[in-house]
Formats: sequence, structure tokens, C-alpha cells
Amino acid sequence: MTTKSSRPALVLLSGGLDSSVLLHLVARRLHDGAVHAISFNYGQRHARELDCAVRQAVTVGVTEHRIVDASFFAPLVQRGTALVQGGAEVPDLADVAEADRVQPPTYVPNRNMMLLSMAAAYAEASGISDVYYGAQAQDEYGYWDCTTEFLTGLNAVLALNRRTPVIVHAPLMHQSKEDNVGMGLDLGVDFAQTWSCYRGGESACGTCPTCVERLKAFTAAGMEDPIPYA
Amino acid sequence: MTTKSSRPALVLLSGGLDSSVLLHLVARRLHDGAVHAISFNYGQRHARELDCAVRQAVTVGVTEHRIVDASFFAPLVQRGTALVQGGAEVPDLADVAEADRVQPPTYVPNRNMMLLSMAAAYAEASGISDVYYGAQAQDEYGYWDCTTEFLTGLNAVLALNRRTPVIVHAPLMHQSKEDNVGMGLDLGVDFAQTWSCYRGGESACGTCPTCVERLKAFTAAGMEDPIPYA
Repeated sequence: MTTKSSRPALVLLSGGLDSSVLLHLVARRLHDGAVHAISFNYGQRHARELDCAVRQAVTVGVTEHRIVDASFFAPLVQRGTALVQGGAEVPDLADVAEADRVQPPTYVPNRNMMLLSMAAAYAEASGISDVYYGAQAQDEYGYWDCTTEFLTGLNAVLALNRRTPVIVHAPLMHQSKEDNVGMGLDLGVDFAQTWSCYRGGESACGTCPTCVERLKAFTAAGMEDPIPYA
Repeated sequence: MTTKSSRPALVLLSGGLDSSVLLHLVARRLHDGAVHAISFNYGQRHARELDCAVRQAVTVGVTEHRIVDASFFAPLVQRGTALVQGGAEVPDLADVAEADRVQPPTYVPNRNMMLLSMAAAYAEASGISDVYYGAQAQDEYGYWDCTTEFLTGLNAVLALNRRTPVIVHAPLMHQSKEDNVGMGLDLGVDFAQTWSCYRGGESACGTCPTCVERLKAFTAAGMEDPIPYA
């Protein structure tokens, strides 16, 4: 993209690798206008990712960073996911059968629609038309709410708004995590201040699905992951 | 409908007139299976409607009634709506210009998508496929997120779920509030235990948009509204 948009933007920022790269991309290459960030504590096991979200938002110098307590969400969905407190245990990727990878145990029921609907509500009330989220092309895992079909459908609904429609963008959707590491290096992202491990312990486990993906991406990019592993 | 579904159902229950009629409709005519209800405190001025939700759920004998604290929502959207605490004042219907009625001051930015996405998440995690919400045909007012287009679009997105898709139903969508009063009478709904007034005071104001609609509906149905008016 050669010209930046002068409109304000809102980035859904988890503090993970992908959304941190996305925040830098939006603030440094896509938007000249004010960049806002929004993060949610929805009862995820790895709520420590939010510390990283704060640091990334400060580094980029966002206009406003909202951290929303949506912790009511975990009790609503804990019967259906391993990712939130009170849910089943997070499995090692190696223990997730091929047949289950289409909608794996770490999928959180309808989470992305919920987070994006709150982000869109905040954006609409704040006069922001462009919302960004960090869906990426998934190697090992599949989530229906990270697909082009999901994004297109959601935008078709949001376009029905009669006064202030919001558009959700996912510019990393066709990039692998390896691509995102490369883009993050170009953009000067401090990867030591990003958190992925679903188990949310003191150091990353290295064996849960997202750790495996992350480690593979750094290896492919020829770089050592700067975060500590168990 | 002549045969009832044996599947469980989830009803989005505000405690207002329409969703209370809907709850009775679902439990008495549409579903033989377990009926669940979910209500949200999202910082609405008229949170006292939740007391009515509790009473309606008890009357119908729902299997489970979840009341969710989503009060983080009001601060996110208060710049864009009169309906939540901290927002602009609720206007009298008579003071809302015709041109503004397409998306009036009491519209809450993207509220219905947010509430339905949380209800769908809870339903999915609980093995419930059928979610009901009380959108009705609006006389005086228009909300894009109460339309057939909204419902169709939302269901198109939810249908992308690879394992446990949820369907949202709005069986009152083409009924007026007068129709809903008539249906509620047939179903034995205690209208004294429903709350509509957006101002949320001790008694209903009688002049805000929803009071005007409600009073008109009772008059048309030839019945006196049993709740106290100022």
C-alpha cells in the first residue's frame, strides 16, 4: 500500500505474535490517523498475554488502549473449550488427532464473533470505521472464525448499519506465522514482548499447539524466539 | 406449528414485553426439550427489566437462567447511545425527528450482534442449536439489527461453524407489539411482570419511545397496561 489512510483505526490486540505485528503494520504503514487498540480479558488461561498487549500499545504510541474485563465469558463457554479457565486441559499438539484439528479443543465457541462485535460496537460509538484483527493462515490448526468466509459474512452484516457501518479487515489472513515473523522483523516488533503459549505459565511450554507453530515459524525465519521456554 | 421440537432451546430474555412473550411461546408451543434463558446486564438504564426477566423465567420453569454481568459494555458505547448509563438523555418519542428514526438515539451500537454472539457461544458450548431473540416489527422506530437481513446474515456466518452450528430464530419479527400483546394474552403472560420504559424509573414514564409503543399496543388490543405509569 503506497498511501496511508487518514482515517482512525481500531486494532484488536491480544498481545500475541500476530496481533502485535498487525498493530505495527496498521500504525506504521496503513493509517496516518489515530490508532486505537482494544484488548479483552475473557478468562483465557494465558491472560498474561495482556501484559504484552500493553507494552506493544505503548511502543507503538496508540491514541487509546482499552482493556476490557469480559471475564464473564469463560463460565459461559468452559464446557466447550480448553482455552479458558475452568475448561479441559490444554493438550499438546501431538496429542490432537488429525480428525479433531478441523475444530480443535483450543477453539473457543464463537469467541471471534463476540470479540469483533464488541470491537465494532466501540468503533461505531467512537466514529472509527476500520477495525483490524489478526487472523492468519493456519498450518496445523483450523478455526472457522479465522477464514475469509467468516470475514466476508461478518462484514455483510455490519454493512447493514444505516448510519455508521464498520468494516473489519484481516490483512494477515493469507500469511503464515513465518510470514508474520518476517514482517514483524521489518517493522521492528520486539518479539520478546509477545506471548503465545496457551498454558500461560511462567515460561512457554513449547508443546501446546500455538507454541509448536510459533517455534516452527521462528526456525523457518532463521531466528531464535527470544521468549523463555520451559 | 403442530409438532414441538424435542431439542433444547435458548431464549435471549430481556424482561421486556416482547422477549417475555417469546419465552412463553418457545416453552409452551415450540419446544418440548429443555428451555434455557440468558439475560445481560450491559449497563442499560432500565436494568430493572432484569427483575422481570427473573420472574418470567421462574414462571415458565426454565431449566437454567443465566444472568450475565456484561457491564463493561456501557463505557464502550456510551458516546453513541442514550440507552446506557453515562450516555445522552433518553428523549421523548415526540422529540425524535422523523429523519432520526431510521437509527434513533436509543439505538445501541451493535448491541444485538454482541448479545447474540454471546448467546450463540453459550449455546454452542452447551449443546443447544436453537437460539431465540425477540426482534419485532417496529412501528415508530427502526433498528437495522432487528431486520430479516440482519438475521439472515448472522445465520449465514454461524452456519460456517464446522462442528456445532447454532441457528438464531426470531419468530416475532413480523408481528407488531399489538400482535405480541394478543399472543401474550393467549399464552397467559403476566404483563405486570414485564418492563419496557427506557428511563428505568420507579414507574414507567409514558413518553419515551418504547412507552409510547407499548401503550399504543395495549390500547389497540383493548386492554389496560397493568404496570404503573408516572
